Amino acid sequence: MAGNALFSRLVAAAGATWPSYTRHEFVLRLARGDLPEAAFRRYLIQDYLFLLHFSRAWGLAIYKSDTLAEMRRAQGLVAATLDVEIGLHIDYSRGWGIEEAAMVAAPEALQTIAYTRFVLDRGLAGDRLDLEIALAPCIIGYAEIAAERMADPATRLDGNPYKSWLDMYAGAEYQALAEEAKAALDEQFVRRGGEGRFPALAAAFTAATRLEADFWQMGLDVAP
Amino acid sequence: MAGNALFSRLVAAAGATWPSYTRHEFVLRLARGDLPEAAFRRYLIQDYLFLLHFSRAWGLAIYKSDTLAEMRRAQGLVAATLDVEIGLHIDYSRGWGIEEAAMVAAPEALQTIAYTRFVLDRGLAGDRLDLEIALAPCIIGYAEIAAERMADPATRLDGNPYKSWLDMYAGAEYQALAEEAKAALDEQFVRRGGEGRFPALAAAFTAATRLEADFWQMGLDVAP
Amino acid sequence: MAGNALFSRLVAAAGATWPSYTRHEFVLRLARGDLPEAAFRRYLIQDYLFLLHFSRAWGLAIYKSDTLAEMRRAQGLVAATLDVEIGLHIDYSRGWGIEEAAMVAAPEALQTIAYTRFVLDRGLAGDRLDLEIALAPCIIGYAEIAAERMADPATRLDGNPYKSWLDMYAGAEYQALAEEAKAALDEQFVRRGGEGRFPALAAAFTAATRLEADFWQMGLDVAP
Amino acid sequence: MAGNALFSRLVAAAGATWPSYTRHEFVLRLARGDLPEAAFRRYLIQDYLFLLHFSRAWGLAIYKSDTLAEMRRAQGLVAATLDVEIGLHIDYSRGWGIEEAAMVAAPEALQTIAYTRFVLDRGLAGDRLDLEIALAPCIIGYAEIAAERMADPATRLDGNPYKSWLDMYAGAEYQALAEEAKAALDEQFVRRGGEGRFPALAAAFTAATRLEADFWQMGLDVAP
Repeated sequence: MAGNALFSRLVAAAGATWPSYTRHEFVLRLARGDLPEAAFRRYLIQDYLFLLHFSRAWGLAIYKSDTLAEMRRAQGLVAATLDVEIGLHIDYSRGWGIEEAAMVAAPEALQTIAYTRFVLDRGLAGDRLDLEIALAPCIIGYAEIAAERMADPATRLDGNPYKSWLDMYAGAEYQALAEEAKAALDEQFVRRGGEGRFPALAAAFTAATRLEADFWQMGLDVAP
Repeated sequence: MAGNALFSRLVAAAGATWPSYTRHEFVLRLARGDLPEAAFRRYLIQDYLFLLHFSRAWGLAIYKSDTLAEMRRAQGLVAATLDVEIGLHIDYSRGWGIEEAAMVAAPEALQTIAYTRFVLDRGLAGDRLDLEIALAPCIIGYAEIAAERMADPATRLDGNPYKSWLDMYAGAEYQALAEEAKAALDEQFVRRGGEGRFPALAAAFTAATRLEADFWQMGLDVAP
Repeated sequence: MAGNALFSRLVAAAGATWPSYTRHEFVLRLARGDLPEAAFRRYLIQDYLFLLHFSRAWGLAIYKSDTLAEMRRAQGLVAATLDVEIGLHIDYSRGWGIEEAAMVAAPEALQTIAYTRFVLDRGLAGDRLDLEIALAPCIIGYAEIAAERMADPATRLDGNPYKSWLDMYAGAEYQALAEEAKAALDEQFVRRGGEGRFPALAAAFTAATRLEADFWQMGLDVAP
Repeated sequence: MAGNALFSRLVAAAGATWPSYTRHEFVLRLARGDLPEAAFRRYLIQDYLFLLHFSRAWGLAIYKSDTLAEMRRAQGLVAATLDVEIGLHIDYSRGWGIEEAAMVAAPEALQTIAYTRFVLDRGLAGDRLDLEIALAPCIIGYAEIAAERMADPATRLDGNPYKSWLDMYAGAEYQALAEEAKAALDEQFVRRGGEGRFPALAAAFTAATRLEADFWQMGLDVAP
């Protein structure tokens, strides 16, 4: 755990904002299986649009790399998103009755625009560490959310229509990806940072976490 | 008017989205003088935060310039914002009982984040024309809004607490600035563009206009 | 050929600058097999450093994409560079007695800095078309150079130590990649451009071509 | 001097590269008054082109600012360059028989492209500290160069055609500007940095210094 120090410190600095995202009502109901399907569909559509900007963000990270190893990690995440994850998302959404064309044509929600463009601006105004800090509530947060829900007695997997969502993010593959993201933060905090930088990083992390909580709320607003 | 062709075409392409912004209930009530003061205060605080990113956007435009003349126009807008407008905003807000420190400390609203970062992303992903198109609903739109309200018989200036807001944006100085912004769009559409580019520019303009309408709505949401 | 109209027009607009690059003495001697080995080694080392920034440029292109298809093409080029080409370059250079560590540690030549950073600045100051125009002398130019030399009676392949270099760039795979790059320019010139944009694009293309000629000269300067 | 710690450390880390720039033969001959006029004219023309990108760099710094104070300092430097320095440069160059139109039309030298685009790339790939580090050999270096030459007994001011150049950069106004730039580095090294970041900053500073030495050499190459 020592190696994941920065992420833990960021979470601590975010205070109540962190659980307002990771234990958002959207997530608790998803885990209990009583989230309205309309809320989940809204989330699926906006998450598709999110993934396009997520790929752009990791493309930007390639540009902002200082070493071949940094480039390769970012390129791996672009490839995982464009070659695998978007395809899975399209298949999965079809299972929910949503065609790809409908997702492509959907207008971006205010919450989707706010979080994705906030991330990209942090990445362009700052350096690669700023970019990865803004992405951390998403990448690392999803792993924590799924793991925490899996360990919660209130979670119901039998007959839960959202079980595969929980399985994916709680699965070993995604958890390992999140651990790599934590390690990358630590490595960069040494090489690109230092204590003086912590307050600004923590403020950006908290702002990004709030935008992720708004993203869950966007789903609930459709079908409260 | 021939010289302002691009802006007029963008407005036409935006369809109902344009008046949903320029004739938003926030604006109509401001002109009639019956906008709740809490709504206006909310707007003033977020508009201060907006101005910081507006300055950043014109700083970016200096970077994205191809000629000395382009740099100078962008630098003039940065100077007008940092040296004049923010000072006026601080004085004006104090008249409404809002101290600068309170504005600096206020959390950015979702709507403020969404519009400002959308603009900056368009500017960084695209060229300077893309940047100015995303800013056009703001710069040119405010001039149209104020002029249109001044010409509206329903507008009441006597005893209207928002009269100075209308006076500023309907005034000759601001109207001239908006005309320059229109001319810059036309000039760049010739030099950086062409017809093939219109659909993408129109889509970005419409998206930016929607985000500006959301910005008005943010004020009203506080005190409907 | 109609589909490759933009590239042909750019070459025509570059005038004598184009053959000063594509028929540079470095290239002619490489094809005849009498290029000094020291010149080629210098080129190999700097070309390794170039490839790192070439990957960054295509990472930036992912960020600057408007569609999934655009992202995928850029991501394919990053992957081809990071997963394949750099590996081949390392193997090939080892055959010339140059270890990877020596290439990593080599200082970037002025010519390498000038061309790579010029490309990145065009890409950041402008849009994706500006970026691809600045890369075109490299991507498309190498295909033309190799094809032209292969068709030249003065070229000597038997016993030519540089034969595999010519084979690679004259080969069907690389030629197809260059054709795709031409097609991408045409597609973007319609969607992002128009005639008004041609003079600025041509000026940037010519400047980039001059920088590529300087890159060849850098090799020769070591061993004229 | 304690407050200027970062700059001093960067100079120390640059080793022999620093004096190879600050005591370049171009500078020594300029101070003695026996620099060939053709060398100085070449420098003046390229320095004009440099100033355009210098303005772009400080425009970028406005975008990359986190506070109003940071924005204002960058905006002050853009204004000083666009409103004052370029005008002075044009007047001064006319005194040397070079018209503005000739400078605008001159092709950028390889050395000009290399340094300016290196700066912009550092600024876009990294954060504002990265940008200011890349600019430091220029802004702060010129102050040191002029002060050092003024203190050198070998310097001859009487009848030296380059006296006004030395006077300007050794003058109180420019020296104060350089001190502010040093203080900004220190302030940012605390807030954006930390010791872990020093090696990368030092490497970039040394690379930028080498490019500035190349810029002097460019002048001498015309008339050695």
